[in-house]
Amino acid sequence: MTSGILPSTPVTPDALSDVAAFGIEVPSWAYGNSGTRFKVFTQPGGPRDPWEKIADAAQVHRYTGAAPRVSLHIPWDRVEDFGRLGAYAEDLGVRIGAINSNLFQDDDYMLGSLTHANPAIRQKAVAHHLECIEIMRATGSKDLKIWLPDGTNYAGQDSIRARQDRLAESLAAIYAELDPDHRILLEYKFFEPAFYTMDIPDWGTSLLHCLALGPQAQVVLDTGHHAPGTNIEFIVAQLLRQGRLGAFDFNSRFYADDDLIVGSADPFQLFRILFEIVSEGAHRADSGVNFMLDQCHNIEPKIQGQIRSVLNVLEALGKALLVDQRALTEAQEAGDVLGAHEMLMDAFATDVRTALADQREERALPRDPVAAFKASGYLDRVVAERVGGQQAGWGA
Amino acid sequence: MTSGILPSTPVTPDALSDVAAFGIEVPSWAYGNSGTRFKVFTQPGGPRDPWEKIADAAQVHRYTGAAPRVSLHIPWDRVEDFGRLGAYAEDLGVRIGAINSNLFQDDDYMLGSLTHANPAIRQKAVAHHLECIEIMRATGSKDLKIWLPDGTNYAGQDSIRARQDRLAESLAAIYAELDPDHRILLEYKFFEPAFYTMDIPDWGTSLLHCLALGPQAQVVLDTGHHAPGTNIEFIVAQLLRQGRLGAFDFNSRFYADDDLIVGSADPFQLFRILFEIVSEGAHRADSGVNFMLDQCHNIEPKIQGQIRSVLNVLEALGKALLVDQRALTEAQEAGDVLGAHEMLMDAFATDVRTALADQREERALPRDPVAAFKASGYLDRVVAERVGGQQAGWGA
Amino acid sequence: MTSGILPSTPVTPDALSDVAAFGIEVPSWAYGNSGTRFKVFTQPGGPRDPWEKIADAAQVHRYTGAAPRVSLHIPWDRVEDFGRLGAYAEDLGVRIGAINSNLFQDDDYMLGSLTHANPAIRQKAVAHHLECIEIMRATGSKDLKIWLPDGTNYAGQDSIRARQDRLAESLAAIYAELDPDHRILLEYKFFEPAFYTMDIPDWGTSLLHCLALGPQAQVVLDTGHHAPGTNIEFIVAQLLRQGRLGAFDFNSRFYADDDLIVGSADPFQLFRILFEIVSEGAHRADSGVNFMLDQCHNIEPKIQGQIRSVLNVLEALGKALLVDQRALTEAQEAGDVLGAHEMLMDAFATDVRTALADQREERALPRDPVAAFKASGYLDRVVAERVGGQQAGWGA
Amino acid sequence: MTSGILPSTPVTPDALSDVAAFGIEVPSWAYGNSGTRFKVFTQPGGPRDPWEKIADAAQVHRYTGAAPRVSLHIPWDRVEDFGRLGAYAEDLGVRIGAINSNLFQDDDYMLGSLTHANPAIRQKAVAHHLECIEIMRATGSKDLKIWLPDGTNYAGQDSIRARQDRLAESLAAIYAELDPDHRILLEYKFFEPAFYTMDIPDWGTSLLHCLALGPQAQVVLDTGHHAPGTNIEFIVAQLLRQGRLGAFDFNSRFYADDDLIVGSADPFQLFRILFEIVSEGAHRADSGVNFMLDQCHNIEPKIQGQIRSVLNVLEALGKALLVDQRALTEAQEAGDVLGAHEMLMDAFATDVRTALADQREERALPRDPVAAFKASGYLDRVVAERVGGQQAGWGA
Repeated sequence: MTSGILPSTPVTPDALSDVAAFGIEVPSWAYGNSGTRFKVFTQPGGPRDPWEKIADAAQVHRYTGAAPRVSLHIPWDRVEDFGRLGAYAEDLGVRIGAINSNLFQDDDYMLGSLTHANPAIRQKAVAHHLECIEIMRATGSKDLKIWLPDGTNYAGQDSIRARQDRLAESLAAIYAELDPDHRILLEYKFFEPAFYTMDIPDWGTSLLHCLALGPQAQVVLDTGHHAPGTNIEFIVAQLLRQGRLGAFDFNSRFYADDDLIVGSADPFQLFRILFEIVSEGAHRADSGVNFMLDQCHNIEPKIQGQIRSVLNVLEALGKALLVDQRALTEAQEAGDVLGAHEMLMDAFATDVRTALADQREERALPRDPVAAFKASGYLDRVVAERVGGQQAGWGA
Repeated sequence: MTSGILPSTPVTPDALSDVAAFGIEVPSWAYGNSGTRFKVFTQPGGPRDPWEKIADAAQVHRYTGAAPRVSLHIPWDRVEDFGRLGAYAEDLGVRIGAINSNLFQDDDYMLGSLTHANPAIRQKAVAHHLECIEIMRATGSKDLKIWLPDGTNYAGQDSIRARQDRLAESLAAIYAELDPDHRILLEYKFFEPAFYTMDIPDWGTSLLHCLALGPQAQVVLDTGHHAPGTNIEFIVAQLLRQGRLGAFDFNSRFYADDDLIVGSADPFQLFRILFEIVSEGAHRADSGVNFMLDQCHNIEPKIQGQIRSVLNVLEALGKALLVDQRALTEAQEAGDVLGAHEMLMDAFATDVRTALADQREERALPRDPVAAFKASGYLDRVVAERVGGQQAGWGA
Repeated sequence: MTSGILPSTPVTPDALSDVAAFGIEVPSWAYGNSGTRFKVFTQPGGPRDPWEKIADAAQVHRYTGAAPRVSLHIPWDRVEDFGRLGAYAEDLGVRIGAINSNLFQDDDYMLGSLTHANPAIRQKAVAHHLECIEIMRATGSKDLKIWLPDGTNYAGQDSIRARQDRLAESLAAIYAELDPDHRILLEYKFFEPAFYTMDIPDWGTSLLHCLALGPQAQVVLDTGHHAPGTNIEFIVAQLLRQGRLGAFDFNSRFYADDDLIVGSADPFQLFRILFEIVSEGAHRADSGVNFMLDQCHNIEPKIQGQIRSVLNVLEALGKALLVDQRALTEAQEAGDVLGAHEMLMDAFATDVRTALADQREERALPRDPVAAFKASGYLDRVVAERVGGQQAGWGA
Repeated sequence: MTSGILPSTPVTPDALSDVAAFGIEVPSWAYGNSGTRFKVFTQPGGPRDPWEKIADAAQVHRYTGAAPRVSLHIPWDRVEDFGRLGAYAEDLGVRIGAINSNLFQDDDYMLGSLTHANPAIRQKAVAHHLECIEIMRATGSKDLKIWLPDGTNYAGQDSIRARQDRLAESLAAIYAELDPDHRILLEYKFFEPAFYTMDIPDWGTSLLHCLALGPQAQVVLDTGHHAPGTNIEFIVAQLLRQGRLGAFDFNSRFYADDDLIVGSADPFQLFRILFEIVSEGAHRADSGVNFMLDQCHNIEPKIQGQIRSVLNVLEALGKALLVDQRALTEAQEAGDVLGAHEMLMDAFATDVRTALADQREERALPRDPVAAFKASGYLDRVVAERVGGQQAGWGA
């Protein structure tokens, strides 16, 4: 008889085998400079163009074996020849992932993009996505990720309803241009950069637009984009039940959209999210859920921060895989509140780090990816090499 | 030229004429005792049965002319002859409104009702709604209001997904029993009484269940049932756009589900909500939106508290009706951020109390309903009459 | 070289030796019935009087060796002979801890107790504390714990300032009656049962009153009594720095004052709190910090819930003790953001359950206290024995 | 007999006379460009240097008669000859107000300024304040305003306690340099730019440092710097009771530190804050409370936004002055919950705009300051004149 007070979950290689097959997509922009509205601190050796960003991203995969794709952000990552960029990535062992559009940096978008009252500006925003779709074709990417920063700051500033109608129309125009194997991944966000209304503030709004668009539209859940206290794993379960969970933007937060390293603020929440994923088998590649990072390493080293993030997700996934779902269901159906809870807590309390290091070793990966990266001298090398030019940031 | 800094909105009787036609439904349970988990304070003269609750409720309509219906709560308001209760209400000038089911006070429901793992308990909860539907038939009520208190307190305690599936099945069984002119009004709540997951925590979940059920299922928006910072008027606009806003439970709050007098905590928010309502014409009776109060007068006099609440809603509605929608749309489309905002603020800042008192006078209602009620001696009378017996509360 | 990615903290018996000396005080009211404003569910075998509550509490100490004291709540735990109650507790291996006053259940306190506008009611509330001080003398308790539920529900209802002045005066009258080795432990709470203002809503207000009273007044930090997002460990560090952290009320929450099992909602937060405690050596008995539980086991078995809670605190303490403070300070002073963070995360990720079980075994305690308690048959026995009478709850 | 349902508060010129004497300080940085971390949108005619900022600020005073001082921010507003800048301001009818230091934009401050582990960096931050004190002497300013952006992003990154100790030492070094008629105004902020701990996150921490420093240190309350749901007027009352409310930074917010126009998000909250101020007579100049704006006009015209903000504060002040404090106290002491509440609501519901316009007219100010400013052609003129150069923003 166990009570979850003692370790009772065997940490077998088998139990963790799905971890080895799991991949997390990393964002090109995590390697450039980021910050708050108060200050962007720069770091030595920062990449100056998409090529260098991909080189940095490839380091994450090299040491973890779990970050095989890199998301691009347009126009920040615009290059003349995307085919060549894709080939360059593959040479470094990674692939191009989702293409992210940008609706927040053009002066025309001050009062909205896909929702703007002026049809010409909406059309410009739609056209930007057609460019992104072209880049998808050139890179082999299948996911068009749309985060809509549109909203209003003052009550009365614009019509909530009219903006929804314009948004629906703009999204439909984009959707119509997708290839059959393309998806729109539609993100929602509680607030920021708008401070009164966001035009897609919650999963319900995102899902309604996806349902109206069709089966190729899916919801993106960014873990930092919710009201205080929101139960995120509930939303995960609900979107999986609807067959519309397209992707995660992983990060963590204490307050707002803090964009900290995933798992650094509330590792138990990350575990609970992964548990819902595992319960539905959605951690497997065929689920179509794209697990991505979206973080800002404002004050910590960026590549190392990304490696740590990937490992945090793997660790949470490993713990979630330890749960004996059959026994759990039995306890749940018997109404054993504490017994069922303790099964989950037991898995969370179990230290899977050594087992995951063993697994990496078997895959010819370093046991300690952070230490291996730090020992590699990569950072010193790029600091020396990347002389001149302009470091990339959110603006470039 | 106006800037919203000076009063610029003419407060004409015409502008406010829709207020006279507006009705708010009051809950039978607002007149009984309520409190927090720490203490229920009693008040002299409290009603002891549904008849006395309806008598109290009728006072609200008598002095405001704006509270023509009373919601019942089953089993609290169970009587032998509902036909007679309905007739009694009509004698007092009011009608029976929505029938509210109770899923939180039976010992069997400790771990859930419509979502319980045990099919026998789910069946019992479904059967309770069939009784409610019978009461609807007996009273002429058209709305079956369901607030689901189900949820879990601990991670792992039960399966989020399984509970959704069971809920869908239970709701479908209830829906199948509705008459063609009946509606299910399905409420959501962020938290309490459950503290880890609620099974219908947000408007998205409620709406998905309504969509699955069919056109006779609509969402109830209780203004106190959201995460901190949630933009409620956005949800109002979204549900109206989907044609699924069935009802409001009005109240106000500073922290959680405080159930204070509507408009007492954030009158500007109430105004913004009513503004979205008015923008779509949803304040008119044919919109099908049932505007209800759901409050707890823990420390203030209850009938007076209800009168004040009704007047607060009317006042907010009156201000919302003052907005010149055409001029506002023009400013919005021109991108005049402050100009459009100031039009809204101008209406909010305008004092409509005298005009509404004039309107009441024309309708042979007291100019000051609170003062008239206090002067009527009703409270003293019931304090004297209601001797013996047990005052009604949430438990009876 | 370590990066916190791999287990690097040796879990030696020595490192954890302070855990064996650590004691947590349990509340008498945790064994009685509790619930929400919607419903109090009862559980079979619930205690009917203070003697049975202490018997239940003694079980927690018997199986964990870490719960040597029981807090009383007056009037719920009023007995004729407190000396005999104390002796009874000692026979069962535990002692009487803090005496908690009750300012929320007398009808006179509807609008306040120590802050009431009516001096007679304030005097009554002060007098209640003099009774509590007598009970302290009779039981040998040294801590008078005051949680002030006073506040207002509506803006304007009362003067914020006047209530502070009255509170200061009332507290001074109580403080004047303390014996030299007595303490006042003054709790704060963000909201509930009042919904507009609480008269002691935050640590700052509690501390100001303590400073005005004198050195025998200390702040109580209830982990559930803060605004969303509040960094609790910062407050712990601040109160320790001021020498005014008198006690903890441990529990956990996702939303408001949910009063769940400590460590069940955010175990990492609990660890961070204990880390601040350990950093200042405040986990040792001579620090004067009284570590107490204050929870509601609404739907789970109560004694088992308490055992689990105690173990959760011990586990968090054990992990906190693993941190190499010297190495951490070095990394911090070197500005190694991720390195320092990873040292903390390494300790948190380490599974100390087996080591703590070993420690218990050495102390002749069961390795798995929950399993041992369940196997003991205690619960079946009290279910059989406690026939008739009225189960204790918050109201009795 | 009145119930607050009807207008009952006479809006006499006398009641509002204190409004005419009230002054609000405006920040030089409100006229430059601001934005979010995503984008800073520029506006035509933006000022390029401190002289132009002061010229813009003087417009606010010119049309409202209520904004007689301008806060400076160093280094953004550094000029060669501060005496000349002060004289220039006086020529335009305004004076230099508080001097704001900047601790967030130097690369050295990435991990802290006054709290940095490196004493050399702390010393640099202290020295920056000595420069500010010199500027105070040159401009006649009496207030040194310190907002500390220091904090950490990750648990373990630095010692909470050590940072408090370093902060106390740094502040003492600055305090020692003040002239006898100088004040330190010490601001607190819940979060941002740091996302795990802020070193002064709440009023309690700010007050403790002020108490340690001495009587010339006072707390700044920025209305946007609190956890969700915080009762700000309670803090106002508490700081007034302690004699330590030094200043306000007015703005408004729905979510985080949104920095919107004061009174645009929750005008009733602004009224409640002013009511606490008026209750203690703290709106009068001799109270020493410096009422300042601190806002970001990201998408709306800046000068017009400032004018509107000033008027919003005046309007709230006017309403607060209408409350009959004696009658209110009587109702409060009688325990008339709704009666007392309704007195406050009556004042809030009263439209004081016409009376305030009358008052302005008597003072030879425009009835409608926004309309008068817009009609003045000032904005067109500066758009034409301010050609070339670099518009000022947060970074310059």
